[in-house]
Amino acid sequence: MADVAAAAGVSAMTVSRALRRPDTVSEEVRARVEEASRRLGFVPSRVASALASARTMTVAVLIPSLTNAVFIDLLAGVQETLSPQGYQPLVGITGYGPEAEERVLRTQLAHDPDGVILSGLDHTPGTWDLLRGLTIPVVHTMDLAAEVEHSDCPVQTVGFSQFDAGYAVGAHLAARGRRRIGLIAGQLDPRTRQRCDGWRQALRDAGRHDPALELMVPDATSVGLGAELLERTLATHPDTDALFLCNDDLAQGALFQCARLGIPVPERLAVAGFNDLAGAAWTVPPLTTVATPRRAIGVEAARLLIAGMADRTPKSRENPRRVDLGFRLMVRETT
Amino acid sequence: MADVAAAAGVSAMTVSRALRRPDTVSEEVRARVEEASRRLGFVPSRVASALASARTMTVAVLIPSLTNAVFIDLLAGVQETLSPQGYQPLVGITGYGPEAEERVLRTQLAHDPDGVILSGLDHTPGTWDLLRGLTIPVVHTMDLAAEVEHSDCPVQTVGFSQFDAGYAVGAHLAARGRRRIGLIAGQLDPRTRQRCDGWRQALRDAGRHDPALELMVPDATSVGLGAELLERTLATHPDTDALFLCNDDLAQGALFQCARLGIPVPERLAVAGFNDLAGAAWTVPPLTTVATPRRAIGVEAARLLIAGMADRTPKSRENPRRVDLGFRLMVRETT
Repeated sequence: MADVAAAAGVSAMTVSRALRRPDTVSEEVRARVEEASRRLGFVPSRVASALASARTMTVAVLIPSLTNAVFIDLLAGVQETLSPQGYQPLVGITGYGPEAEERVLRTQLAHDPDGVILSGLDHTPGTWDLLRGLTIPVVHTMDLAAEVEHSDCPVQTVGFSQFDAGYAVGAHLAARGRRRIGLIAGQLDPRTRQRCDGWRQALRDAGRHDPALELMVPDATSVGLGAELLERTLATHPDTDALFLCNDDLAQGALFQCARLGIPVPERLAVAGFNDLAGAAWTVPPLTTVATPRRAIGVEAARLLIAGMADRTPKSRENPRRVDLGFRLMVRETT
Repeated sequence: MADVAAAAGVSAMTVSRALRRPDTVSEEVRARVEEASRRLGFVPSRVASALASARTMTVAVLIPSLTNAVFIDLLAGVQETLSPQGYQPLVGITGYGPEAEERVLRTQLAHDPDGVILSGLDHTPGTWDLLRGLTIPVVHTMDLAAEVEHSDCPVQTVGFSQFDAGYAVGAHLAARGRRRIGLIAGQLDPRTRQRCDGWRQALRDAGRHDPALELMVPDATSVGLGAELLERTLATHPDTDALFLCNDDLAQGALFQCARLGIPVPERLAVAGFNDLAGAAWTVPPLTTVATPRRAIGVEAARLLIAGMADRTPKSRENPRRVDLGFRLMVRETT
């Protein structure tokens, strides 16, 4: 590092900053340090540096799945926010199971991350024990903490109300004058269940809830599953005139199947999805859905974490934040 | 660790193995060690351990983008193979630029990974210099090394021939009797270009290549872009009777737009995509495309890396491997 500093005409401290926190030095200094590092073949060791500073510049990020676009968007927001600050995400996959999450978290903590980002709030008692013992900041995402829950372990959350979002869809379908409003859901993680609860409450408030029109299966959501469950719903309840599908991939599959079966949407059947995934505005007809702020949640979670990691005093744990980033009902042509 | 060993009634070495390489001890020993660790609040430090063993149990994985499903599948294959062996992927995003890739690789190497997985073979001279200097194993994915290229830096590759896959689509459309066969491509990374080259060669071999029917734009591919470019193609060349779209999201957008415009597929226009992304079998009509082995490439790359990291002698660099996992033309109803 001393050689690089001499070659670039700056101090060793500046070399360190230029390589670790490029945003803290000028563009010109960064270029000089990078050029000198390249020429001299210098690669700073994070491991040696971790011992010196007690930091590893890594952040554990636990998500349920890599094949669910929602968590990829979350991860992209985290990555694009951490990366300019020199932090590397350590990505752990939990497969939607709280027990697996605890195991993965334990493995991740063995890498001494400087912070932790978790998905949801559905953790095992063992995970809560681990979190309580940590001196590094932790942010929970995609969900919002209830008022008093986990009061012995203050939590920071960044998300939106899944219940309110589901309620908005139910109320929208009822307001469109639909009478036989069905539900199709897969995966059935706690967030999906909250969405379903909200939809159910809206239909109860409208006096139109019929439990027989709920079709909930544990399978992972997919376009193919949506097509299959649409057919099953219409076979058992041919009078269904509106459907809330708890993820856009299910809704896209249902739209494809309606086209194949010659069922006019929305005339005969209104269809609403969830998440506003890529392509939702382009389906035939364009899909009514709920836009959820996955990337913004990742960005905000990473920002909170960076602030916590920088200040190193655990004040964020005394005064935890609960950031509600909201959602937007995107009314298009399928309803 | 001594306390955990005493509580679990095993040696400290066994504790270490149970926590780091769970597959190397019995289920029963693992359960005892985990229970004792949990009870005593023990989390082993990878950083201390990295100093002792000169290993960090991390692998740098560089991919162009988190929003391209192809690389998410690759990453999923890598993750599911590394994770049971105790390795954590460090995910770096390069944004499709060789210069950015070099910067990200430099940052990743500062974390002292035990191995590196790269996407493609389009690296800067600086990246090749870095790779030449490494004593850890490196695997390049999604592409196959040419025979003599980079002979000064032996490379291991796991992928398939993008050229042959593009050729297969062109030959298929020509064999279907189509005369005015167009091309729509976005992103234009080296792999997309190789696909286009293959398609072009097939049409030349069939005597039906017309450069006027090629529409190549640098924008990232999306459903919306496919819809837009379909319209542009038909406006400028209304006699187009077949189209190869270089990614399935483009093809799905083109199919949606055909439905909207009342253009019968495949009667009036044949449509072929690439990658066999989720939902391709469910479009209306089901999409002809090329199934590419992204997840298998991730699995195989991680396996090669694990073998190289385990043996610690750089023999893989003397005798590099080139693993061709092939592709499959999925003929469905759009052609």
